[in-house]
Amino acid sequence: MAAITGARNIVTDADAMVPYLKEWRDLFRGKAQAVVRPGSTAEVAALVKLAAETGTTLVPQGGNTGLVGGQIPIAEGREIILSLQRLDAIRTVDAQGDTMIVEAGVTLQRAQEAAEQASRLFPLSLASEGSCTVGGNLSTNAGGTAVLAYGNARELCMGLEVVLADGRIWNGLRQLRKDNTGYDLKNLFIGAEGTLGIITAAVLKLFPLPAARATAFLAVPGPEEALALLNAAKAGAGGTLTTFELMSELCLEFVLRHAPGTRDPLSARSPWYVLMEVSSQSASGLDEAVETFLGEAMETGLVTDAAIAASLDQRAAFWALREHLSEVQRFEGGSIKHDVSVPLHATATFIRRASAVSEALIPGCRPLPFGHVGDGNVHFNVSQPVGGDKAAFLARWAELNSAVHAIVTELNGSISAEHGIGRLKRDLLPGVKDPVELALMRTLKQTLDPQGILNPGAMLA
Amino acid sequence: MAAITGARNIVTDADAMVPYLKEWRDLFRGKAQAVVRPGSTAEVAALVKLAAETGTTLVPQGGNTGLVGGQIPIAEGREIILSLQRLDAIRTVDAQGDTMIVEAGVTLQRAQEAAEQASRLFPLSLASEGSCTVGGNLSTNAGGTAVLAYGNARELCMGLEVVLADGRIWNGLRQLRKDNTGYDLKNLFIGAEGTLGIITAAVLKLFPLPAARATAFLAVPGPEEALALLNAAKAGAGGTLTTFELMSELCLEFVLRHAPGTRDPLSARSPWYVLMEVSSQSASGLDEAVETFLGEAMETGLVTDAAIAASLDQRAAFWALREHLSEVQRFEGGSIKHDVSVPLHATATFIRRASAVSEALIPGCRPLPFGHVGDGNVHFNVSQPVGGDKAAFLARWAELNSAVHAIVTELNGSISAEHGIGRLKRDLLPGVKDPVELALMRTLKQTLDPQGILNPGAMLA
Repeated sequence: MAAITGARNIVTDADAMVPYLKEWRDLFRGKAQAVVRPGSTAEVAALVKLAAETGTTLVPQGGNTGLVGGQIPIAEGREIILSLQRLDAIRTVDAQGDTMIVEAGVTLQRAQEAAEQASRLFPLSLASEGSCTVGGNLSTNAGGTAVLAYGNARELCMGLEVVLADGRIWNGLRQLRKDNTGYDLKNLFIGAEGTLGIITAAVLKLFPLPAARATAFLAVPGPEEALALLNAAKAGAGGTLTTFELMSELCLEFVLRHAPGTRDPLSARSPWYVLMEVSSQSASGLDEAVETFLGEAMETGLVTDAAIAASLDQRAAFWALREHLSEVQRFEGGSIKHDVSVPLHATATFIRRASAVSEALIPGCRPLPFGHVGDGNVHFNVSQPVGGDKAAFLARWAELNSAVHAIVTELNGSISAEHGIGRLKRDLLPGVKDPVELALMRTLKQTLDPQGILNPGAMLA
Repeated sequence: MAAITGARNIVTDADAMVPYLKEWRDLFRGKAQAVVRPGSTAEVAALVKLAAETGTTLVPQGGNTGLVGGQIPIAEGREIILSLQRLDAIRTVDAQGDTMIVEAGVTLQRAQEAAEQASRLFPLSLASEGSCTVGGNLSTNAGGTAVLAYGNARELCMGLEVVLADGRIWNGLRQLRKDNTGYDLKNLFIGAEGTLGIITAAVLKLFPLPAARATAFLAVPGPEEALALLNAAKAGAGGTLTTFELMSELCLEFVLRHAPGTRDPLSARSPWYVLMEVSSQSASGLDEAVETFLGEAMETGLVTDAAIAASLDQRAAFWALREHLSEVQRFEGGSIKHDVSVPLHATATFIRRASAVSEALIPGCRPLPFGHVGDGNVHFNVSQPVGGDKAAFLARWAELNSAVHAIVTELNGSISAEHGIGRLKRDLLPGVKDPVELALMRTLKQTLDPQGILNPGAMLA
């Protein structure tokens, strides 16, 4: 491998490997023989070919920000981590054609910035955007806060370059909005967590920058009213509904208590809140239209109080209430997490039933439902009882997961809405997947990676 | 098979088989042993299982409106046509969750109407919508006139039910906007023209009905200005740009000459025209915003004249100028057709080069470029020279195709933007596809249909 990449791009020193093996929330440490850092697609292809010839197992890795252990080997330590970080070229930005070709190791933030420099929007946006990479975003079909209007990573990708398990390179970097000349190979690799091939570059869709944005922080009576408000906002809030995030009162309390500089924009507490953002391609008139819409929503009782951001600072302050939510949970002790989705119409039912089952199972626990409810995606996290024992609470992780996932399954939902399966949720799959679907997945894995050298142990056992 | 469907659902009489075997433009007649018409997914599964056991080849068919012979066996006549038309239930319409589950044999128009009855929009729209079926639309990844804003059939589908080549049923009817729990199987069957499995039902995405639409018929100097206008309209035409169709002066002439009741909405002729439609979720203000936008476009010279529809009748009249375009070509003699796409930035280059090459090859021929230029999709059709011999002209079909497709390939485009490959374009694939991609396609076919019983001869030889 050193002959392919140069010796200085092979890392075997234990300390130097730590950034590649440490789970960023410190949930676990991985094990690997080495980290190899190729600098081009040709080098990736040569490495995979060599791995195929020698039966060496490879774990592709981008920014190491994944939440389900898809990017870190944890079992035997015989794997080699193949870091894509040096494939960091922005190959082209085509403002006229609204596309951009970037390599897998480009961070999401750099991709966003390159688009913006060409007066275009690349809308994918998530908490780790400063360090996660486009290759990782595509391999995990990342979601985030703009899915409602622009779709997830899958929908933002027009073409791929992929190194296959035998080292062949598939060049599918097509910049075409329409192409019906064969099977859709691209979507097979997107969301496959590097188990079917290694994404080395991608064609991304660009959009015009919105001319105006209106951001509102709203008090709503409950999840049922939030859903009705969502449908009303999609039908006509004065522009394109780009964000619709729900959170419970306790969520807001946690943020106000632990995130410095945050404050409640409304005068009285509410059991539920919505952060809503509407975008428009017209420079004028949006604020007035959103005010009219919210006025009507207050008359019909869907909204009980509303604040519309009057400045960019205020917009940032509203967003901070949502963005700090993930990090503040640790100040309240242990937290058991779920990243689930249900059909939109079942969102309220899910939140109520999952909260009830959590409280019945662990009296005093504090359910913290929030998330991208416009996509039916709830981050149903549960904080430990006040003053309780953290370790004892966390010991019930699997038990609570299982009870919550049972409700998700009954409502025809998904136990991983946006984070993926990786190694941490892998053994849950057989319990929730149609056996025919699981068999098809195994067939595809066997066909495209017959030796099992690509990310073994991720997605499928 | 009669034991599965009942004898009355097996058609073997030659006359009764005609509607299933006749190509609708009368380009050719197909051959088949029989037509079988199952009435449920279970019956489809039983039929496919029996076919697998007996080595019988099946050609799935919806409304028989395909343009590339994907739905009609033409080679040996040993195939059995499996018509999905009796699977015509609309299983559920979930207005609150913006989804609908329909069976494969439901016509596109019925699906649109079912959505509208629930005050929702199912935006897929194409010329044959009265008879084409949702199963066919998905199997061919249909496009049409609303792709610009809403995407093609692939992007409008959230889940599928598919009968696999061994008769197993995969139930992937998920109504989830986010689900990252495994490989993306759905997109493997969408656009696969029934060669990997038979789609029996689908979850479709619904949208709010637009509160207002503004439709304009515009004179533009050339394709370059049309592209600049497209980008300006995407950035801010006062609403969501839902349609952007380009046509040359000769296209308009053909329509005015042959389609009764049509008239030119503008006072003077222009070398190029654009039909543009903008939608909005606000009931008021759209017409004014579009007028302002077009006023600016006239000042900068992107538009030289404009008519905005003042009534629904006028809107229909503008649309008729575009919709009649396909059918009027036959009144001008033979027509050699191309359904191609190129990256957006290359659209004008393609149109100029393809026109020049056609005129050089067949002096006096009349290029007729039109289509969904907002998607980079040009229907580059060429009418025969005035007074020339039709048969002699049509005999040069392959030669002209080959010259035009060479330009498409050089510009990194696609030789089938929306119609698919079927049997008519199958032998062109090896000339334009990356060998790695073609090999991957063959591998997938071999894996999912090892006996080759599903639509043999379509897509792949």
